[in-house]
Amino acid sequence: MKTSATSDLPIGVFDSGVGGLTVLQALRAALPGEDLIYLGDTARLPYGTKSPGSIARYACQATQHLQQQGIKLLVVACNTASAVALEALREQMAPLPVIGVVEPGASAAVATGIGADHLVLATEATVRLGAYRKAIAALDQTASVRELACELLVSLAEEGWTEGSIAVDIVSRYFEQLEAAARTPDCVILGCTHFPLLRNTIARVVEPGTRIVDSASTTAQAALAMLDSLHLRSSRGTAGSLRLLATDGAMRFARVGGRFLGASLSADDIELVDL
Amino acid sequence: MKTSATSDLPIGVFDSGVGGLTVLQALRAALPGEDLIYLGDTARLPYGTKSPGSIARYACQATQHLQQQGIKLLVVACNTASAVALEALREQMAPLPVIGVVEPGASAAVATGIGADHLVLATEATVRLGAYRKAIAALDQTASVRELACELLVSLAEEGWTEGSIAVDIVSRYFEQLEAAARTPDCVILGCTHFPLLRNTIARVVEPGTRIVDSASTTAQAALAMLDSLHLRSSRGTAGSLRLLATDGAMRFARVGGRFLGASLSADDIELVDL
Repeated sequence: MKTSATSDLPIGVFDSGVGGLTVLQALRAALPGEDLIYLGDTARLPYGTKSPGSIARYACQATQHLQQQGIKLLVVACNTASAVALEALREQMAPLPVIGVVEPGASAAVATGIGADHLVLATEATVRLGAYRKAIAALDQTASVRELACELLVSLAEEGWTEGSIAVDIVSRYFEQLEAAARTPDCVILGCTHFPLLRNTIARVVEPGTRIVDSASTTAQAALAMLDSLHLRSSRGTAGSLRLLATDGAMRFARVGGRFLGASLSADDIELVDL
Repeated sequence: MKTSATSDLPIGVFDSGVGGLTVLQALRAALPGEDLIYLGDTARLPYGTKSPGSIARYACQATQHLQQQGIKLLVVACNTASAVALEALREQMAPLPVIGVVEPGASAAVATGIGADHLVLATEATVRLGAYRKAIAALDQTASVRELACELLVSLAEEGWTEGSIAVDIVSRYFEQLEAAARTPDCVILGCTHFPLLRNTIARVVEPGTRIVDSASTTAQAALAMLDSLHLRSSRGTAGSLRLLATDGAMRFARVGGRFLGASLSADDIELVDL
C-alpha cells in the first residue's frame, strides 16, 4: 500500500526559469501517465552567470519546496544547477532519487562512438565548470571535448527568434570563434535547456551528418529508466496532471514558457510561490 | 565643518548589474573630482524581467548597503529600478537626494521640441511600466511616445557584439515590429543602461538626423546640477576615487563591466558584498 502511494506521487522538475520546460515536455512525451510538478526559480534567474556558491544555495532552497509538496523523483532540469549542485541536492533529498541533465546528455553523446569529437554548446557557467567535459571524460577518456559559451542563444530562444537569418548568423558567429578543426565535430551537445528550440538552426550551421544530442530527451529517458528500476511508475493508468510553479513573474513565465512547452499558457496556469 | 565633511562623501551609484557602469562612466566625465561608489546587485540580476514587488524589495535592500557606507547622493543607474522603486528609495533614503535615470532622459528627450515623436528602446519591465511614457507626458502632453522592448540588445551588449551586421540586423528586426509611422521618430531614447554601447548601431538603423538621447549622460548632468544646488560638490580639488561593489560573480563583472566602463578591470578590482 505504501509503495503504491509513493509511485502515484508526482515527479518534481526544477529549473532556474523556463528553459527546463523543454525537459518537462520531453518527460510528458516519455511518461504520459505521470503527474509532474515544475518549479522555475524565476525570481533568481539566470543561474548561468552566478557563482557556484549562490547557485547551490538557490537550488537547495527551491527544491526544498518541491520536496515539501511530496514527489517521488527530482529532475534537475537546469544545466548550471546540475553542474554545480547535483551532489548537494542528492544529499539534501536522500533517499529521494535525483537526476540531472548533464550525465544523461554525456551518456548519449558518448554513444556516438569511442574517441569521438564533441562540441558542447552551453552557458558561461556550464562551460566554466567544465561539466560536460568531466562527465564525458568519466565515460570515454579518449573523447575530445570542446565547450563553447553561447549566452546570446538563451535570449534568442526567449525572444522566440529561433529560426531565420539572425539565428543562423549568431550561431555561425559563435562557431567562428572555434579553431577550424573544432568546427566539424562528430557530435554537438545542446548543453543548455534553451537550446533545443534552436536545434533546426544549429543543424543548418554544422556539417550534414553531425549528431545533435538534446539533453531534454536524454534526461526524460533517464527518468523513465530510474522509475522502472525503482518500481515507481504510476499505476493509475490515466493521463498525468501538470502543475507549474514559479517564484516570480507569472505573466512572463506564461508567455515565454509557452514557447518552450509547445503549448499556450496564461498567467492563471502558473502558481506563484514565495521561497 | 559638517557641510564640508558631507560634500566630501562619495556619490553612490546603484544598478542591478553592470549596465549602470555606462552611467558611472558619464559621472566620472562630468564630475572628475567626486569619489564614486558603485554597487551592482549581480546576485539578483536581471531586474528587467522580475515583478515590481521583487524589484522594489531588492533595490531597497541593496541601496541600504550604500547608505551604510556614507554617501551624499544616490544615483539609481537602472531604468527598471528607477521606474518601479524611485519613490520607495527616496522615502528610505530621506533626507539624502536620490536621482533616477528616467526623469533626466525624459527631460532631455522633451528638449527635442514640443509635440515631438519619441521612441523609447528599453527592457520589457520598463516598457510594461510605461515609465518614459509617463515621465514625458508629465513634461509635454502633446508628445507622442512609443515604447519598444528589445531584450536581445542587453545580451548583445554584454557579449560585446555591439557593432557589425548581426547587431544592425537585430535592431532592424525590432524596428520592423513597429507600424511604419513609428519607425521614423524625432527622438530615440536609449531607455536601458546597456544601450549606449549600441548607440552607433542604432544610429545606422534610424533616419539620419534622428536625435538619440542617452540617459547615462543626461543623468550625469542631473547629478551635477543636484550637487551644485545643494552646495555638495567636493572641495578637495583632487581626482575622485572609485570603488566597485558587486553581490556576486566578480570575474564576470570585471570582464563584462570593463566593456561598459571603457576600462580594463580584473576580479581584484571588485569588492564582493553579501546582502
